[in-house]
Amino acid sequence: VSVDWSSGGLDFHLDLHPAEGRRHGLAEAVRRAIRDGRLAAGTRLPSTRALAADLGLARGTVTQAFAELAVEGYLRVRQGAGTVVVGMPGAAQPPRAVPPPSPRPAPRWNLLPGRPDVTLFPTTTWLAASRRALAGAVAADFGYGAPEGHPTLRKALADYLGRTRGVVADPDAILVTSGYSQSLGLLAAVLRDLGEHRVGFENPSNAEFRRVMTWAGGLAEVGIPVDGKGLRVDALAGRRDLGAMVVTPAHQYPLGSTLDPARRAELIEFAHDTDTLIVEDDYDGEFRFDRQPIGALQALAPERVAYAGTSSKTLIPGLRIAWLVLPSRLVEPMRAAKRLADRHVGVIESLTLAEFLAAGHYDQQVRRGRSRYRSRRDRLLGALGQEGITVWPDSAAAGLHIVLPLPEHSPPEEQVLAHLARHAVGVDGLVPHWLGAGSGTGGLVVGYAAPPEHAFGPAVRALITALRLCWR
Amino acid sequence: VSVDWSSGGLDFHLDLHPAEGRRHGLAEAVRRAIRDGRLAAGTRLPSTRALAADLGLARGTVTQAFAELAVEGYLRVRQGAGTVVVGMPGAAQPPRAVPPPSPRPAPRWNLLPGRPDVTLFPTTTWLAASRRALAGAVAADFGYGAPEGHPTLRKALADYLGRTRGVVADPDAILVTSGYSQSLGLLAAVLRDLGEHRVGFENPSNAEFRRVMTWAGGLAEVGIPVDGKGLRVDALAGRRDLGAMVVTPAHQYPLGSTLDPARRAELIEFAHDTDTLIVEDDYDGEFRFDRQPIGALQALAPERVAYAGTSSKTLIPGLRIAWLVLPSRLVEPMRAAKRLADRHVGVIESLTLAEFLAAGHYDQQVRRGRSRYRSRRDRLLGALGQEGITVWPDSAAAGLHIVLPLPEHSPPEEQVLAHLARHAVGVDGLVPHWLGAGSGTGGLVVGYAAPPEHAFGPAVRALITALRLCWR
Repeated sequence: VSVDWSSGGLDFHLDLHPAEGRRHGLAEAVRRAIRDGRLAAGTRLPSTRALAADLGLARGTVTQAFAELAVEGYLRVRQGAGTVVVGMPGAAQPPRAVPPPSPRPAPRWNLLPGRPDVTLFPTTTWLAASRRALAGAVAADFGYGAPEGHPTLRKALADYLGRTRGVVADPDAILVTSGYSQSLGLLAAVLRDLGEHRVGFENPSNAEFRRVMTWAGGLAEVGIPVDGKGLRVDALAGRRDLGAMVVTPAHQYPLGSTLDPARRAELIEFAHDTDTLIVEDDYDGEFRFDRQPIGALQALAPERVAYAGTSSKTLIPGLRIAWLVLPSRLVEPMRAAKRLADRHVGVIESLTLAEFLAAGHYDQQVRRGRSRYRSRRDRLLGALGQEGITVWPDSAAAGLHIVLPLPEHSPPEEQVLAHLARHAVGVDGLVPHWLGAGSGTGGLVVGYAAPPEHAFGPAVRALITALRLCWR
Repeated sequence: VSVDWSSGGLDFHLDLHPAEGRRHGLAEAVRRAIRDGRLAAGTRLPSTRALAADLGLARGTVTQAFAELAVEGYLRVRQGAGTVVVGMPGAAQPPRAVPPPSPRPAPRWNLLPGRPDVTLFPTTTWLAASRRALAGAVAADFGYGAPEGHPTLRKALADYLGRTRGVVADPDAILVTSGYSQSLGLLAAVLRDLGEHRVGFENPSNAEFRRVMTWAGGLAEVGIPVDGKGLRVDALAGRRDLGAMVVTPAHQYPLGSTLDPARRAELIEFAHDTDTLIVEDDYDGEFRFDRQPIGALQALAPERVAYAGTSSKTLIPGLRIAWLVLPSRLVEPMRAAKRLADRHVGVIESLTLAEFLAAGHYDQQVRRGRSRYRSRRDRLLGALGQEGITVWPDSAAAGLHIVLPLPEHSPPEEQVLAHLARHAVGVDGLVPHWLGAGSGTGGLVVGYAAPPEHAFGPAVRALITALRLCWR
């Protein structure tokens, strides 16, 4: 027989075996609960009076059972201060071999790419937006929602994307997702359902996102080369076997080039001619520093391009909200896929982000980030220049990272990364981003956004000191 | 040439064509932006002074361009009050045929199952927990997190599940997910990756969740019958072809029976003998009214059972947070799958829920819900009893719904549901839940949790009135 008791504001569940007698049964049930880890050390139990009432036992029975457990070392009873679980007396025996998480601790000098400075996140403003958003919410908002995302958020995103990125963004063409990984995974699953087998990626490109599409949709990856003008669109000529081609036109990841205007037009022509979906990963399109800003490719052909954006760089990765602006034919299948995957993005974050956008806080954050990252990029380039370290041409015009080619006399990338790690400097390598293991040249992908402001200068100095030792 | 301008707190993107001349070029760029829907009606533009400075144009040029657009009906310029986008003059032409969402409006008398009373959600308490949680957060919490979920939340969930549901819950065995659908989908994908092809479901069982597993993992569904004692475990005898068997032991969905103690033991034996994973869907285990509460099946064999819980019934579905307590061997594969699916659950909701649990608010909500739903169940049973309407045996001991078998003289389920819909009463039918279309008996699945308190009485009366007309 199991008994739940609910007392002192906590619900408890105990397995009471009638055969064990009252006092002994209660004691043994508590012992089992502690042994199994269900009653954790530090948990404060209800008073013996409340417990006796809840369980229908005499108070003395409970007191005796507790005293027994205290003697055994399971509980600590303090007169007037309640009864607290001490834990397992004697040797503990975790019966299960559950693998502990292996957190990769951030390096002391964190120059890993793809991470914003999270200390820019305006917690107080966000909470205030949350309060306003929930004050304006109706009951229906809290139930199961629409897979495409809350209409208020889709409207706010459409306004923002049209205004700042030139995206042709009908709110009904937008799908709110739990991050760019999910955006890609859902596209992969829908492409698979539509009978596609292959997806094109820039070579090099982010290896993790390639893995997302191959895993989620069982699609085979095909690498298309890039150069200083972005994707080599000529290398696509005549290909009709790609369900989609994923590109980073604003700032090629990882090499950093910008897709040439003529190639933009050629890519759209290719999409029209071959009926290939273009997936535009606009992962850091908001952060462009030097040249004329470059609007989204999607504006050239909204029915050929799925535009993908994210809040991970402009706000924080921990928020897990991203968006797709979809060609009409993909809208319904993608809604169905999102519904099957996890129904929809949480309503509290959705309404808060909508309010944050509508109040202009999002634009403000983008400007704060742009200004901070521009200044950091300049400091980093200055420091590298003084040291005579070459930066990959074009990689510095935008975004949150630059690329350093390895000098001729450099040890291989793996050794350079290990050397930097020994100096507590974290950067990324180029090699894993090439399709076909080890097929491409090495280099360092250096992010300049991640450290908090006070740590940025020391991080750059640590990088340069370590590189000097490695490349001298 | 594209130009972004950033002014008055907003970022704008315009395509300026140098060939068009300054004034004309600016006017045409704004026209295009409005025509494409990128500048929405109601958007307030920056002042001509700020805009001129940002674009490097004479102020008079901007003023003239705006005047031109005002004449054409694109803008409305009010002296001293700024310039506002009016919208497309003349006939509008949406160039894309984007399918609008088709929201299923909630029925006026909402007695659909699987939905809690969202008006119970304590918004203010939640926001206060959010504020406390964010005040205690460190920078690393806002970056990319661990796929298994934030350790603070996993610890709080382990305490809660051990204490209230008897789950053997090592925090490291917990995976936080974006809802039960995602929990199932990830399990299906991992089972597929492990070489499994089939998954067992109770027959009847929730059709939507079956679809999730077949979609996400490509698994074939196999129906195992249930009766008044829950799953017919004898029907599993000798089966070695199931990668997993999904069960609802606390309150069979939809029929409502409780898995018999002897069958619980037999099911675990079956799992041991055949190495089949049991998925325990504890969707409403917190809401048990009459009998002794029933702890989680998982406690009998933590290495054989994946325990699945959710906040959708205890808090709100819109939150999108659920959890799995996994056998050791599935912990790593499930972490990898979650990472590929969408990295991890958002940190703000995660830390807020952890704080909400630790402060005892979650227990309090469960008690409030239990008390409200028990009273509603009693009112519903009373009203049905007075009318002489039979309730499926055992379906009312727990949870948020009951089942009404169709009387012998009843029209078929589909007609009864249509009749109720005409009377604005929403309930669910049994037929879609049977595996193998149309193979099982009809019935009504009546939820009593969804309506706000003031609407519950009228909803019950509306149901009974409509049934009287249909079944007289």
